[in-house]
Amino acid sequence: MVASRTPAYLILAEASLELVPPGLRGHPSVVSNAKRQGRDPERSLLDSSFHHRAMRPLEEAERRGRPDIVHFCALLALGSRISQAGRLRLFIHTRDDVVIAIEPATRLPRVYDRFKGLMEQVLIEGVVPKDERLLVVEDGGLKELFERLAPSRTVLLSSSGKRTALSRLFPQKKKLDGTAVAVGAFPFGEFHKATVALCGEPVSIADGTLEAWSVVGEVLSRMAHVEGLK
Amino acid sequence: MVASRTPAYLILAEASLELVPPGLRGHPSVVSNAKRQGRDPERSLLDSSFHHRAMRPLEEAERRGRPDIVHFCALLALGSRISQAGRLRLFIHTRDDVVIAIEPATRLPRVYDRFKGLMEQVLIEGVVPKDERLLVVEDGGLKELFERLAPSRTVLLSSSGKRTALSRLFPQKKKLDGTAVAVGAFPFGEFHKATVALCGEPVSIADGTLEAWSVVGEVLSRMAHVEGLK
Repeated sequence: MVASRTPAYLILAEASLELVPPGLRGHPSVVSNAKRQGRDPERSLLDSSFHHRAMRPLEEAERRGRPDIVHFCALLALGSRISQAGRLRLFIHTRDDVVIAIEPATRLPRVYDRFKGLMEQVLIEGVVPKDERLLVVEDGGLKELFERLAPSRTVLLSSSGKRTALSRLFPQKKKLDGTAVAVGAFPFGEFHKATVALCGEPVSIADGTLEAWSVVGEVLSRMAHVEGLK
Repeated sequence: MVASRTPAYLILAEASLELVPPGLRGHPSVVSNAKRQGRDPERSLLDSSFHHRAMRPLEEAERRGRPDIVHFCALLALGSRISQAGRLRLFIHTRDDVVIAIEPATRLPRVYDRFKGLMEQVLIEGVVPKDERLLVVEDGGLKELFERLAPSRTVLLSSSGKRTALSRLFPQKKKLDGTAVAVGAFPFGEFHKATVALCGEPVSIADGTLEAWSVVGEVLSRMAHVEGLK
């Protein structure tokens, strides 16, 4: 029997992914949008493209309601060479500290609306699909996830972090086994203190600001390189 | 005066991006979908998610109507470190041999429906916006584009191509200046003969099949590495 190696972990952290908060469910833009999509307002994801006006009074409104970021990052991660090689596990961590584990074999919907429908179902029902359990809301939040994974090393990536070369962050000869990489899946601002407390101080891999999917793309490629995928 | 270096070129080739063909504009699924979106059927992009039934009689139906592939690949390219460093120019080449040049400063809509609206406008009007000319349909097709760019080297990427290590394809010491990389922006099948005639035989960077965006992500990261971006 061959012991399987521990994979690396990619965590889409503080993701702008949540159901419409209770106080907003009666807002005209939320109601009309849900109706147009044949959805129930209380079973709808918050989406700043459609709920912009309703969101104004929300705390941290500018960094909420961006399921598109999770969508692209997750498609990129699951389709990557490193994931196909069985060397990556993907987690979504939402800003409400909900952790969703996604099986590597999952084929996410490529159409945004259908992805949103899937995420609504996961957040409400906890497991999708019931039998295959491809997407599962895990017990506890990020803290409990880290307790379970016990990462060998944790890297938190943020544009505001200390500038570090990608090749220094993931050196050629350093094994990735058990490495947890957390990428902010929100559009603006800093990580919350609780995330930094768990992951350590953030680092940045570019001189300017990168979109989350560009960070994910760079990290996945570097991981494939370090793992020796030719 | 400092002569500016020639950038590399990324071409999203044979992209599944086209307006609904004339013969399909009266099909119930096309009409109802256009109506729901407040669009005109003849000004709508073909989208297999919504026009699946209508598309059945189309030639090569299984590889048409996938604007989501272009959307994600273009967002990834424009947001990349190599593009931010001014070292990449992006072109969309559609399966109808239409070439669209995209200025690096372009901020594409992140919401799929709005991206589709933008592409419809570009395909119909040829230039968007009229004053800034961020997206421009160029004269001629891929052949004329290659005549204008006169690439120093051309790389065509396809899962069916000859397996080649990314590091051998883009060696550390080989300058990228004027290199044209064409990635198939369609879901299945082989490149058309005309594309291979222009670009040479395809090569593959993975053992299995990769989504176009994963190929683009790997290429962009490797380019950044070769360019010495730390």
